[in-house]
Amino acid sequence: MTRRIPLEKKVLSENDRLAAELALRFGEADVFVVNLMSSPGAGKTSLLEETAKRLGSRLSLAAVEGDLATDRDAERLRKAGLPARQINTGRGCHLNAAQVTEAVVAFDLAALDVLFIENVGNLVCPAAFYLGEHRRVVVSSTPEGDDKPVKYPVAFHSADCVVLNKMDLVEAAGFSLEAFRRFVRGVAPRAPILELSCRTGAGLETWLDWLTAEREAARTAAHTPE
Amino acid sequence: MTRRIPLEKKVLSENDRLAAELALRFGEADVFVVNLMSSPGAGKTSLLEETAKRLGSRLSLAAVEGDLATDRDAERLRKAGLPARQINTGRGCHLNAAQVTEAVVAFDLAALDVLFIENVGNLVCPAAFYLGEHRRVVVSSTPEGDDKPVKYPVAFHSADCVVLNKMDLVEAAGFSLEAFRRFVRGVAPRAPILELSCRTGAGLETWLDWLTAEREAARTAAHTPE
Repeated sequence: MTRRIPLEKKVLSENDRLAAELALRFGEADVFVVNLMSSPGAGKTSLLEETAKRLGSRLSLAAVEGDLATDRDAERLRKAGLPARQINTGRGCHLNAAQVTEAVVAFDLAALDVLFIENVGNLVCPAAFYLGEHRRVVVSSTPEGDDKPVKYPVAFHSADCVVLNKMDLVEAAGFSLEAFRRFVRGVAPRAPILELSCRTGAGLETWLDWLTAEREAARTAAHTPE
Repeated sequence: MTRRIPLEKKVLSENDRLAAELALRFGEADVFVVNLMSSPGAGKTSLLEETAKRLGSRLSLAAVEGDLATDRDAERLRKAGLPARQINTGRGCHLNAAQVTEAVVAFDLAALDVLFIENVGNLVCPAAFYLGEHRRVVVSSTPEGDDKPVKYPVAFHSADCVVLNKMDLVEAAGFSLEAFRRFVRGVAPRAPILELSCRTGAGLETWLDWLTAEREAARTAAHTPE
């Protein structure tokens, strides 16, 4: 066991070093970067499709898409008018900073306002890898059940914002909003919970408000002398 | 990089060695072992609850529950009459054979007919770790979307059976059964797809039939001279 621990530390710190370089580049380019995490099928891609439709005319958006296989998600985003670069991780359960560094070569960062990084669908591994992002968003969905925050506390704890998608299925799924809110408060007391439905569009304006306000906050922080 | 590869191999083979020991013990005890994998909230625990209600009077069942945190799932199963032992993996994204070896100390294996191992909710990592099981089941659910088999091909490829849960939400989720079946055929051509709903009970008898038939097949195979 003793041989494995230093090595894991070394791998993590190499990721952190690359992520810090990414963060510097994102800051210089004045592009706001959001790292999205969720279970498979919670609706990260749908959220980005709807975001592109509503915000694409006002802000220059792009996305890096992480999946084990296929470029289905990048294709969906391109159809929604969002330039997207697919990363296939094979058996990898998360994106790392080296993969993101390679992927962003496809974009002129200085011409972008917001870059979304859609992580591999997984509520465990992605939380351990910083990618230079300004904000982390965990997308949860009502059919997954209301107890996910306490069963996957590391991901939720690291979230700056929790999006609860598929509100149109809240009753059919037997989902308790009260329980979910209590569980989120327990592991991520400061994260707002944005309840919405990508299918019906309900609640999406709250998400767009959060996104644009957080972008402004990040830009203000970056330009405030220390 | 070259330093990392042999080490990973070593870790994996240590797991395989322990898993092989588990498989021998399971065989000697004549207990049929099923390893269940899925995304968070696809319905593994619900499937076991319903299985216990319907099969618990005929067969002696038990379960090992894998979660990052909480013993909520083990508690649910105990309420359904299924003896369950919880393993908390902390930040671990899958169960390993050492954890299962520790957990099964709680059971008299020879007195059991079926032992379920409910893995951590994750469609990536658990597929890489053999736990000595006779069969692997991947539980998918309609709200996750019909393209999960091609986006998480490693897990589906390793499945002996694919359970498609939440069939009561198939229309509300805009899920294409035809697409799902085609995708499963692509990555797991021999795995049957069992369409059911733990909420309504529809289709559960097909799952029970599969389970009991596979148990008989495994026992016959174990007792056939080579």
